[in-house]
This record gives sequence, structure tokens and C-alpha cells, in this order.
Amino acid sequence: MRHLLDIKDLSRKEIEAILERAMRYKSLKNYPETLRGKFVLTAFFEPSTRTKVSFQKAALNLGAHVVDFAPESSSLQKGETDLDTILTLNMMSFDCLVIRIRRNGAPAEFAKYVDCAVVNAGDGTNEHPTQALLDAMTMLEHFGTLKLKVAIVGDIVHSRVARSLTELLNKFDAEVRMVGPEGFVPESFEGVSLITHSLEEALHDVDVVYALRIQKERLEQSYSNIDDFFRTLQINSRTIQIAPRHAVLMHPGPFNRNVEVSDDVVYSERSKILEQVKNGVFVRMAVLEYAMGVTEFEGVRSVETSLARR
Amino acid sequence: MRHLLDIKDLSRKEIEAILERAMRYKSLKNYPETLRGKFVLTAFFEPSTRTKVSFQKAALNLGAHVVDFAPESSSLQKGETDLDTILTLNMMSFDCLVIRIRRNGAPAEFAKYVDCAVVNAGDGTNEHPTQALLDAMTMLEHFGTLKLKVAIVGDIVHSRVARSLTELLNKFDAEVRMVGPEGFVPESFEGVSLITHSLEEALHDVDVVYALRIQKERLEQSYSNIDDFFRTLQINSRTIQIAPRHAVLMHPGPFNRNVEVSDDVVYSERSKILEQVKNGVFVRMAVLEYAMGVTEFEGVRSVETSLARR
Amino acid sequence: MRHLLDIKDLSRKEIEAILERAMRYKSLKNYPETLRGKFVLTAFFEPSTRTKVSFQKAALNLGAHVVDFAPESSSLQKGETDLDTILTLNMMSFDCLVIRIRRNGAPAEFAKYVDCAVVNAGDGTNEHPTQALLDAMTMLEHFGTLKLKVAIVGDIVHSRVARSLTELLNKFDAEVRMVGPEGFVPESFEGVSLITHSLEEALHDVDVVYALRIQKERLEQSYSNIDDFFRTLQINSRTIQIAPRHAVLMHPGPFNRNVEVSDDVVYSERSKILEQVKNGVFVRMAVLEYAMGVTEFEGVRSVETSLARR
Repeated sequence: MRHLLDIKDLSRKEIEAILERAMRYKSLKNYPETLRGKFVLTAFFEPSTRTKVSFQKAALNLGAHVVDFAPESSSLQKGETDLDTILTLNMMSFDCLVIRIRRNGAPAEFAKYVDCAVVNAGDGTNEHPTQALLDAMTMLEHFGTLKLKVAIVGDIVHSRVARSLTELLNKFDAEVRMVGPEGFVPESFEGVSLITHSLEEALHDVDVVYALRIQKERLEQSYSNIDDFFRTLQINSRTIQIAPRHAVLMHPGPFNRNVEVSDDVVYSERSKILEQVKNGVFVRMAVLEYAMGVTEFEGVRSVETSLARR
Repeated sequence: MRHLLDIKDLSRKEIEAILERAMRYKSLKNYPETLRGKFVLTAFFEPSTRTKVSFQKAALNLGAHVVDFAPESSSLQKGETDLDTILTLNMMSFDCLVIRIRRNGAPAEFAKYVDCAVVNAGDGTNEHPTQALLDAMTMLEHFGTLKLKVAIVGDIVHSRVARSLTELLNKFDAEVRMVGPEGFVPESFEGVSLITHSLEEALHDVDVVYALRIQKERLEQSYSNIDDFFRTLQINSRTIQIAPRHAVLMHPGPFNRNVEVSDDVVYSERSKILEQVKNGVFVRMAVLEYAMGVTEFEGVRSVETSLARR
Repeated sequence: MRHLLDIKDLSRKEIEAILERAMRYKSLKNYPETLRGKFVLTAFFEPSTRTKVSFQKAALNLGAHVVDFAPESSSLQKGETDLDTILTLNMMSFDCLVIRIRRNGAPAEFAKYVDCAVVNAGDGTNEHPTQALLDAMTMLEHFGTLKLKVAIVGDIVHSRVARSLTELLNKFDAEVRMVGPEGFVPESFEGVSLITHSLEEALHDVDVVYALRIQKERLEQSYSNIDDFFRTLQINSRTIQIAPRHAVLMHPGPFNRNVEVSDDVVYSERSKILEQVKNGVFVRMAVLEYAMGVTEFEGVRSVETSLARR
């Protein structure tokens, strides 16, 4: 049993093992029932039906049982803390808790108290490790390596996706750049080579344009002239051309059509957005096996060298 | 793999095969696991817990896995279209998407883009094909034929049930009549022999009185004197007597007690309302098999002539 | 097939058989699939995600299928009664309906009409039998007997938990006391030896301090000086010392931290609160077997004498 709380604490070897395993699952028609008899609980304190379905499908693919705990909006106001709720659920003997929650660091806190594996499915502005893993898988599949130039575009400071992806890419010697409007990019960020407000500067020689979901409300509050944003930072058929022809477009979804990405690029040939979703299920299969420590997963370790060599 | 989008596109033979299969399932104590290893996703953009439970029970009866996608009220306002959501879910490798949605024609649109079977569980005011199939099964069980006189009563113009049922009955040479208050019946409707505001005119020699769910709010807006409706068009112990003694009462549910139907007829001996619900599960078992193209379903085709001969 | 509607109607022997079975399940690593092929529907008209998850886990542990019916807040306003909803669900051929509902006596009413087992998961202020059973299991495990002095503390008059627990303890010759603020304790209660507003009077020689969930809003309305309540009736590190050293603290959950129980006792050594949750799953496994009449359950009956002898 192991937790998957953040990318920070994963070794390069562990990441490679997970990606290798996920890619092998993608190549199979049928999956072994490595999680047969295991019980996975999805506890999404912050709603995200897409990620929840992805985890549930992953668990069922491998023969696990899935139970969903859907907190009533009312229940947590009733005086019980989220930790109390988790301690209670922990007593019901699940093998793995998959947790999405607004409070930064909550899954790591829970992991200290429970008897089972905790998988972080996104905590506040902190981390979203399975997103970073599926992003890495998508890049690796396309380019055969993670030594890439990746520009993350949008509202970086509020993004757990940006944080997890940067952590991961840093472990694989990628070059990460951040582009966003003033007030939405950090002043500095460990392992990031360039922080800028200019798409031109960031994209001219990248391999991956990684657009983040933008909350329009937030932009409207902070940006005097919202149209400026769209003119200068939206990824559309014009701005995508700043990037080299071989560069791909990625997005963690769900996207805002015609906010951070325009209609004409979302499902264009360069877009990997749907492939990311597909890979999400395979990555989560591997992550659930990693977390629940199935013996089959250990076997995969030997393969990882092949990936490390790329 | 086939879609089940509407009754319009089903041949008489296909309908017969589905009904035959559903009736055979009704006669069994245990069901074959014809959908073992299949994954069904229920995606009800418009909530309907009854129909969802019916589909889920049907899928589980045949050994399938079921995952439910419950859209947050917020998520679709976030800038993602319903098609984007379906394209995303499609990447998670389900074998069948069961979709209920407010937008007319949406399931048919989705079917063009996805890799798996789409079953329409009701789209706006367009169609509700599994409802029509279970209605047909109920009539066929009771009367041994679908060559019947059927009066559909209520708010016809807003009813996908009325549309699907009429389409189906037309294929089997039934006589369909429509009865409703002014503004709630169409001026004309293909294949309908009588459109009237009078229960007397419509019911005097029918086999089936099919009452539709009525939205009281809608009536109140459009009808100057709401009590007139209840006096003249509500199906109750008095008005049901206009129909011949052998006629049965049907309703797609959930009904409004003492709005379109009164307490004293809802579960009367003439009522087939609960039987319709029961048949719903069997019809949906057959429909899921039809959609996912299980080979066992092909075998049933040979039986269909027996039904056609009735 | 049997219903489990309330403690009142269970014989001492039946309770013993359920507890014996639950305790045996607690001692096992793997469970027999005694409910394989059975379908359990959870229908929680009043939301309670914790109890729902406990029932779902219990059913899955024994190999049953689980379907959840989640009533839309809107649907029941639409003119359908809760009985109509249950009659509809009953037609979908479930083996057991697990029902939580606000209306007192509703599960017992439903049981008259349906073809399958009904398990009451809490009805209004009436009964919550599986809570009482898991409480009894927890006491029995700790003390080896149910001949105990138990003080129930808090808002007794609105509590189905207090009612069910008192019923159960009375069958086993326990001594039950009730403590609460004025207006929140009944004037008399069958089988209760003491009704008081004083913790001192009630706790000085008890074995179990059973704190109830308190709705602060209710207190505020009825109590002129709310701080008085906390000073005199809250279970905290000071007031728990009124009870003998061997006494344990219990609570049905979810608790209000620092309302009826304080932070410093909730997970103290004397607290059995999490153990109650753990036992809940095992009790519900036994209850589901009891309700669906699995033959394996009959076998357990022979063991019950051993418990009866304690």
C-alpha cells in the first residue's frame, strides 16, 4: 500500500513505472483483474464528474468494486470536519480512497490517519498528480521523450495542474515556460526557464502548448480590459501558428470554448486534448495498482529501464 | 454496434425482435450474462432517476458494468458544450452511452461522433424510444396484437412520449387519436386519425387510454380556466367509463395524482401503469443488447416472424 | 424474505442472531458471497451519505449488486407520492430496498405493498434499527454483555436513534437513562429508569455515555441561554469525568465538534465512535442477509444460544 499524493514525492523511476504500465494497458484489449476483491471509494468533496468517471472506469477495468461518496453540500456545514468524514469512511474498510478536495494538502493530511491508500485527485491549488501523469504519457507517446520545451499558458498561479506538470517535467529535464496575464503568472517558479506575458516569446520554438482552463470571472475582476487577454493570450488558429509546426496543443479540460482556446483549434489535428482524456483512464489504472500495491505492478519495474533510456 | 435513437428509424422487424426478446426475458428467472465485460455509461443531463434506475438494472441483469455520469448543474455552464462532454466521455471507452437530454436531436448528433452505441433515453420534445417500446410490449401482452385503437390524452405538443408512441403504433397499423386542451394538441399529426378536445369523441371505442404527464404550471399559463381542464380531460373514475369496459389505462409516469389522473383510477384494475414500469426493465435489456450487438440477439431474429404473424 | 423495520418487532433471538453473525464477519478476512445475484436498491429520500456508503459496502462485501436511487429534490414535488415512487421501483425487481425517509412509519407502510425485503435505514423521529444494532454490537464487544447502565444524552425527543436503542436495550435488561435540556427530554418513556436534566445524576455510575447529535438551530430556538447547554450538558474532558473510569463514550455520528461533544473527547481512548462506524458495516451485512433470507443465515441461529447465555 502506497499513497499517491503529489508528483513532488514520486521518484523518476516510479513515474516511469506508472507510465510504462499505463502504456501497456493502452495496448491491450482485455485487462487482467489485478484489483479483484479490492474496494475503491471515490470521495469528491469538490465536484468533478469527469475525473470521477475516469477513476471509476479505471478501477472497474481491473475488477475492483467502486463505491462513491457524494458529500451533501449540507453535511460538511453540519459541524463535521472533512477529516472526521474521512476517518469515518476509513472505518468501512476500503482499500483506496480517491480524494478531490478544495483544501490544499488535505489528502496528505488524511494519508497520515487512514489504514488504506490515498490517491490525490486534485487538492485546491496544490497538486493534481494523475493529470500530470496523463499529460506526460501523452507527450511521451507523441514525442518518444519528455525532454521537451513546454509552454504552460493561462492562469498559472491558481493552477494545481501547472504545479504538478512542472514538477514532473523537471524530473525529466524538460524546459518549462509559463505565459499568462499580469497577476496570473508567478514572479518566479523553481525549474521554470521563462515567465512572460508574451505568447511570441514563449511559443516560438516549443514542442507543447499547454493551455490552462481560465475562469472568466477571475479574469474580469483582475483585468481592466478583458478583450486584451483574448487578443494576446487566447490559443486560436492565429496564435497557435507562433509555435513550430510540429508543436502540439494540450489542455487539462474541461475547456472554455473561445475563452482560453478557440473553436477552430480545440479538435484540430494538432490538438491532443481528447488523447489526454483517453490516456487518463490508463494512467489511473496504473496509479490504482501502484497505490494498492498489486504484485503485478512490481513486475513492471524491470521494464522501466527501457523508458529511462529514451 | 448500433444506435437506438428514435422509433422513426427502427424497422418493424427490429421492433418485433426487441419486443420478442424482452418478453422472453420476462419469462426467465435468471438471465444470461450477455453483456459481461461491457461498460454502460448513463449520462442524464436532464434528471430522471426512475428511467436511470431502470436502465442500470437492465444492464446489471445482463452482467454489464454501469458507471453513472451525473453532470453538475454548474459544469455545463462552464463553457463546455454537451457535445464536448460526450466526446470526453467517449474517450473513456464505454460500449454504450445511455443519454437523456433536454436538447432535441442531441443523441443523434452525438452518435455521429462517438465510437460506441448511443441509446436515446429521451431528448427534449423529440423522442423517447424505450418508453414507446415498453408501452408496445404492455399492449401486446394484454391484447396479443398492436392493431389497436389508442387515444393519447393530455399535453401532446410538448410530449416526446406521444411522438415516439405514435411513430411505433403507426408501424403496426394501430389507430392513434390525440385528445387535449386547446393549444396542447397539434393541428395535424402524421398517422393520427383524430385530433380533438373531447374525451367523449376520442374514448368511446378505444382499447387504450394513454394519459400523459401534464405540467400544471404550463396549463395554468395557457388555460384561462384551469378547472375546466380537470372537469373535462382528467382521467378519473367518471371519465374512464367513456371508454369500453375492455379498455386499459396507461401512463408513462411519473404521474401527477389528481391532475391528469385521479387517485381512484391510478392503480385500478384497468391500470397498466405499474406493468409498464416492470416491462421497462425487460425492454431496456433487449435494447442494450440490440445496441451493443450481442450475438445472442441475432438469434432472436428468427423468432420474430411468430410475432409478425399475430 | 423478511423486513427489518424497527427494533420493536425484532425478538431477542433475532437480535442475537444478527449480532452473532456481524461479529463473525468482523473476524473474517474474506466474506462468502451469500448475496451473489441479489439486487439491493438504496433509496435515501433524506440524504445521508455515510449510512448509504455503509449499506452499499455491506452489500458489495457479500457479492450483491447495488443500485442507488437518488431522488431529485424536484421529483417528489411533481405530484408523485413517496409510495408511488416505491411502487414504481418495486416493479424493477430488486431483492431488497434500503430506505431512509423523513416520514415516520413510511418504510413499514411500503413493506405492505412491495414484493421484496424492506430495510429501514432511518425514518423521521421513529426508528433507526441498524444504528441500534451496531451500537449493541459495540457495547457487547466491549463489555461482553448488554446488561449495562446506559445514559443517552442530548435531544431525545427528536431522536430515532434514542428510540431504537432504548427498545433494544430494554430487551436485554439494560438500564436506560435519558438526559437532556428542558423540552428535549420526554416526560416519560417506557423502560427508562431515569429522565433528568442533570449529567451528574445520570452519569455517576454508567457504563455507556451515549451522546446524540444536536441540531444547534433547534437549541437556539428553544433555549433562552444556549451557553447554559454547553456548560452543563456537553460531553467534554470535564463532564466525561462524572462517569466512572470504565465507562465508554458513544455517538451515532456525524457529530458536531464542540457542540454536543468537544474536540478533546471525540477520539479519546474512551471513545467508541469510530468502532461504531466499523461495526456498522458488519451489522448491515448481517441485516441484509436476514432481510433477504439467505440460507446461510439460518445456520447461524444455532450459535445464538452462546450469546444468549452471556
